[in-house]
Amino acid sequence: MPRMKAAVFVEKNRIVLEDRPIPDVGPTDALIRVTTTTICGTDIHILKGQFPVAKGLIVGHEPVGVVEKLGSQVKGYREGQRVIAGAITPSGHSYACLCGCSSQDGPGTQHGYTAMGGWKLGNTIDGCQAEYVLVPDAMVNLSPIPDGLTDDEVLMCPDIMSTGFSASERGKVRIGDTVVVFALGPIGLCAVAGARLKGATTIIGVDTIPARQAVARKLGASHIVDFKAGDPVQQIMELTDGRGVDVAIEALGTQSTFESALRVLRPGGTLSSLGVYSNDLKVPLDAFSAGLGDKTIVTTLCPGGKERMRRLLEVVASGRADLKPLVTHHYKLDDIEAAYDLFANQRDGVMKISITP
Amino acid sequence: MPRMKAAVFVEKNRIVLEDRPIPDVGPTDALIRVTTTTICGTDIHILKGQFPVAKGLIVGHEPVGVVEKLGSQVKGYREGQRVIAGAITPSGHSYACLCGCSSQDGPGTQHGYTAMGGWKLGNTIDGCQAEYVLVPDAMVNLSPIPDGLTDDEVLMCPDIMSTGFSASERGKVRIGDTVVVFALGPIGLCAVAGARLKGATTIIGVDTIPARQAVARKLGASHIVDFKAGDPVQQIMELTDGRGVDVAIEALGTQSTFESALRVLRPGGTLSSLGVYSNDLKVPLDAFSAGLGDKTIVTTLCPGGKERMRRLLEVVASGRADLKPLVTHHYKLDDIEAAYDLFANQRDGVMKISITP
Amino acid sequence: MPRMKAAVFVEKNRIVLEDRPIPDVGPTDALIRVTTTTICGTDIHILKGQFPVAKGLIVGHEPVGVVEKLGSQVKGYREGQRVIAGAITPSGHSYACLCGCSSQDGPGTQHGYTAMGGWKLGNTIDGCQAEYVLVPDAMVNLSPIPDGLTDDEVLMCPDIMSTGFSASERGKVRIGDTVVVFALGPIGLCAVAGARLKGATTIIGVDTIPARQAVARKLGASHIVDFKAGDPVQQIMELTDGRGVDVAIEALGTQSTFESALRVLRPGGTLSSLGVYSNDLKVPLDAFSAGLGDKTIVTTLCPGGKERMRRLLEVVASGRADLKPLVTHHYKLDDIEAAYDLFANQRDGVMKISITP
Amino acid sequence: MPRMKAAVFVEKNRIVLEDRPIPDVGPTDALIRVTTTTICGTDIHILKGQFPVAKGLIVGHEPVGVVEKLGSQVKGYREGQRVIAGAITPSGHSYACLCGCSSQDGPGTQHGYTAMGGWKLGNTIDGCQAEYVLVPDAMVNLSPIPDGLTDDEVLMCPDIMSTGFSASERGKVRIGDTVVVFALGPIGLCAVAGARLKGATTIIGVDTIPARQAVARKLGASHIVDFKAGDPVQQIMELTDGRGVDVAIEALGTQSTFESALRVLRPGGTLSSLGVYSNDLKVPLDAFSAGLGDKTIVTTLCPGGKERMRRLLEVVASGRADLKPLVTHHYKLDDIEAAYDLFANQRDGVMKISITP
Repeated sequence: MPRMKAAVFVEKNRIVLEDRPIPDVGPTDALIRVTTTTICGTDIHILKGQFPVAKGLIVGHEPVGVVEKLGSQVKGYREGQRVIAGAITPSGHSYACLCGCSSQDGPGTQHGYTAMGGWKLGNTIDGCQAEYVLVPDAMVNLSPIPDGLTDDEVLMCPDIMSTGFSASERGKVRIGDTVVVFALGPIGLCAVAGARLKGATTIIGVDTIPARQAVARKLGASHIVDFKAGDPVQQIMELTDGRGVDVAIEALGTQSTFESALRVLRPGGTLSSLGVYSNDLKVPLDAFSAGLGDKTIVTTLCPGGKERMRRLLEVVASGRADLKPLVTHHYKLDDIEAAYDLFANQRDGVMKISITP
Repeated sequence: MPRMKAAVFVEKNRIVLEDRPIPDVGPTDALIRVTTTTICGTDIHILKGQFPVAKGLIVGHEPVGVVEKLGSQVKGYREGQRVIAGAITPSGHSYACLCGCSSQDGPGTQHGYTAMGGWKLGNTIDGCQAEYVLVPDAMVNLSPIPDGLTDDEVLMCPDIMSTGFSASERGKVRIGDTVVVFALGPIGLCAVAGARLKGATTIIGVDTIPARQAVARKLGASHIVDFKAGDPVQQIMELTDGRGVDVAIEALGTQSTFESALRVLRPGGTLSSLGVYSNDLKVPLDAFSAGLGDKTIVTTLCPGGKERMRRLLEVVASGRADLKPLVTHHYKLDDIEAAYDLFANQRDGVMKISITP
Repeated sequence: MPRMKAAVFVEKNRIVLEDRPIPDVGPTDALIRVTTTTICGTDIHILKGQFPVAKGLIVGHEPVGVVEKLGSQVKGYREGQRVIAGAITPSGHSYACLCGCSSQDGPGTQHGYTAMGGWKLGNTIDGCQAEYVLVPDAMVNLSPIPDGLTDDEVLMCPDIMSTGFSASERGKVRIGDTVVVFALGPIGLCAVAGARLKGATTIIGVDTIPARQAVARKLGASHIVDFKAGDPVQQIMELTDGRGVDVAIEALGTQSTFESALRVLRPGGTLSSLGVYSNDLKVPLDAFSAGLGDKTIVTTLCPGGKERMRRLLEVVASGRADLKPLVTHHYKLDDIEAAYDLFANQRDGVMKISITP
Repeated sequence: MPRMKAAVFVEKNRIVLEDRPIPDVGPTDALIRVTTTTICGTDIHILKGQFPVAKGLIVGHEPVGVVEKLGSQVKGYREGQRVIAGAITPSGHSYACLCGCSSQDGPGTQHGYTAMGGWKLGNTIDGCQAEYVLVPDAMVNLSPIPDGLTDDEVLMCPDIMSTGFSASERGKVRIGDTVVVFALGPIGLCAVAGARLKGATTIIGVDTIPARQAVARKLGASHIVDFKAGDPVQQIMELTDGRGVDVAIEALGTQSTFESALRVLRPGGTLSSLGVYSNDLKVPLDAFSAGLGDKTIVTTLCPGGKERMRRLLEVVASGRADLKPLVTHHYKLDDIEAAYDLFANQRDGVMKISITP
């Protein structure tokens, strides 16, 4: 039986490269030879034991690769084709999928919903920080890469670009809106690009790291608020002449960014939350206008599926958003443990690491 | 100068009937002779000092009456015409109004938004628990009463019907949805009727008072959950075979109902909040799926304006929702202090009190 | 090889009962033993050669039945289970499906769209006017029938209820809307019920046949316009005091109903078209306000898929719409040729015929 | 009584500069001293007698100017302030306005709707091709010009930018959409910019004039189709690999562009129509998929009101769309008759003419 190398969650604080069998291909699967992948902040949560997965699981959910083998029922693709799949791989047939909510796909439930159930790769099934990965429901999830695009150019599509853009989509950003993005990590930076793509004209990025501020400006931020230079709420209210913002995007997952986002919202505005929270949240009565401010809080898990990926690949191909500056480092799969160390400790200005088997 | 009787907030725990001048009519106002009005839960918050208003303010925001005098700029109405105005009386010209957010009308601000700014009657200007009330921006706010409808039949339109219905409108209830309504007070009962009007097929009402349960069933509740008979979250999850609800309506304003509403939401569902909260809220991490459950929380202040009122009057006229059972008591304006006592103490099965000057 | 009886399109004006092999079950299919089905207006178009299908095709697209055999990949169902499938059976994996447009599923196209491509049964694959029918992509399309519902009660779900309701859904009917439905055949009657379910308060049905008018009233029509009693446009404008309607539903497929629907629309209103047209349409310049009236024309093909069916079954189970009066006749499959003759000639007040193998 | 110069429609084919009294200012009006205005294609329809207005009317509906005098009820502005008003000046208080349909404002009707009723300046009341113009309902319609913007930079906001952008807004363009714009006149060019602002990644402009093609490319067109180089439908279908476009924008008002737009739409797509038509339209049966293609046709009249203008001014101020290339000529008001001659005959590569009193 042929073997491959794969990054495996062994136990808390240990993700190691192991030797594993290359998986068998079921009728609706596709086996992808991974050519590039990357590490996500969520993988660090897994590493640290903050997000529970089964011991022995291959991690990783951002695959770029080549079709190695197609299941017997999979049509419309060919072996050797360059493809991506989303971090979220919905089945296409659950009630959740058919209700427009495919990230909450409910495999195994009769009613069809499971919280985060669409996130399978590197969560509930083996992921793609490996030489090969099995993509389930391949006809729903494989998206061909347009000619002329490099792996690095499309590497953000499966997760952070889809997630980041969704903030403005779900927040219903309109032409002429004022949008703030709290935290300019990779997802926040994609959220800046997404706000720009949807027609926001004032985009305020909140972060203190100069390199991130600089990338934010390139991606469309018109203003930067450094939270170390003063209360960010006050700074944002001043920037908006006391009006507040139409859409506030939370891209970190903390009480303080969540609360600030709610405070700078104009009445009737939308807080679009992307962060992965680790604790209960508090909604301050005044920031919430006692429930009478017509405010909306919307949370979004990365949209997946091949149609989503196709659209994001079009964004890259059209040059409408250039996310290459997010790829700050390149590692071989053999060195993935070092890559985890770099990323987990956020050294050396790392944003995203391109990892090639 | 002609005088009138009016219920005035004197100080905490004192709303008393006083003698007041009938107000002058400005160019865009209408003076309405009040024929029927009612007391709202919010008025009790005012009475108890929980919601601050100026001392000396005439309270009340649910007017049914007759046009007594029109401002010089007001066209399209005639004196003697039977009309209602919404509890919320937007100006029609603020940026908030023109942005589809007229309940957050910003009188006096340059940017055009004030939290709850559309609520003026009995909040920032004199209200309608009086013989006469001045309706501002009359051309935006006066809605003629269709022939054949009694005052009591239309008395719910200005506030609780508009508020209650908005829960399902803002929650985007679809045909075949499962909806739960937490707390079957007057607003919750209207929310039940609204869920039915929008096409929900399973409507679960949560309350422990038999009279309210009975009215809820009449208005469209298919199931009743008595929170004293067991954990309501568990009961609702059982009723829905573990799936949860599409839309959960909070109609009370407490941590426990808010939290339960979030817990029974299916992934991707919407918590539509109507309650007036008195404290900070906690969002439990698990109920919120750590921010990854595609859940939405939407809050709504009663929609106002004459187009809204016209539509609600059509609902009454068409017989699509019969809210008369909510009017449990009738008082004269002269006895309004007794009415407040009854309502504040929720004695005698009171839901809404019809008050006639 | 076991055989079955099936209604087959032989050539123009000839649909006959034939003996056919019971089909083999592929991995993602389900074989359904049909217990009840019906004839649709579209089948008559097929019969008359107005809508082209392959000679030898088994017709029919409204199946109620029992699971006889499940494909090897089909999970979540059991043999013997009572189910329906929609007239439209999307694959769940085309770009059209994943873009929220599953009725235009594009089987066989690389880009994923085919006009009407989701309609397969009795159109591009064998249909259900037979003892058995193969439902493709069974996990996307099979919907269990709730306990206690009869075949006749759910027989409208697969097509006309789904189609009829979609008019108000796609037309975005709001609480308090005025809606007109042109032509009160089975689809128009379902459109009346759908308008009511979405909160319309004035529902005007246009037809001249008393039996249909009577059913329309039962299903929610507040007014009936008999087009033989005078120009329907004029009658509707009078009923609405010159305002026109918010949403006009076309449920026949002729120039005259389409044009009248456009003429009675208020500025900013929506013409929601369900009809199957047989000729080019003319859009009169004045009725279209020269393109400046903010009018919308939306066309809809019957929504399918198991989530859609589940919701419609909930409507039936909840008693929110009682469409049993539409079933005016019962025939055996053996007599289906007579049933076609009755239906094609619209004799004997026929609306829908329940056909049982 | 002070006098002013104004361009007046005298009779068919005669718009001449006349001497007129400066109008009196009513309580809710503002008198604006016009500093720049322009001529619209609709003005040419008026000139040619194709769009009827009263003889003696001052034409023009695209005002940039300075507040000269405010009505007694107008608050929130100051004399001397630089402002624009939209071509459409809704009242803010009609049922149409309050229903989200303010371009169809119904002045004088009891029910509140008049087709195109929001278009008043230069249509039903005196317009702005004059030294002064009276803006009705000033608090709804006056929008201050941000510091640092020139008249020419904001001159497109009142009409063509608002109209052009609305095509993609009403067509609900999504990130990754393919959009085609038929006809690259001033409105079509703004539609290109709007499609880009809303996130379209493939934008196909259809026109034959090189100068317009060049501006289209600057504003975001990724492909140009020259309809003289071959059937545009065929060219577009080839560009999209047979898929068709998500949104087709009609920006001319002819049968041929309308019909082509419908033909290149993918199933489920939206035809967003901006053109002013002069004749009945034909909807070909096949292009319309016999009414079963889930296609939508939406028409839009230029959105107005100060919130709309504020947003468009933000687009200009943010540099997100640079429409200055559309201003190809500058004339004095004294020479407006020559400007009409140039524009009506489309000589000298004219797109928009800046006219300064």
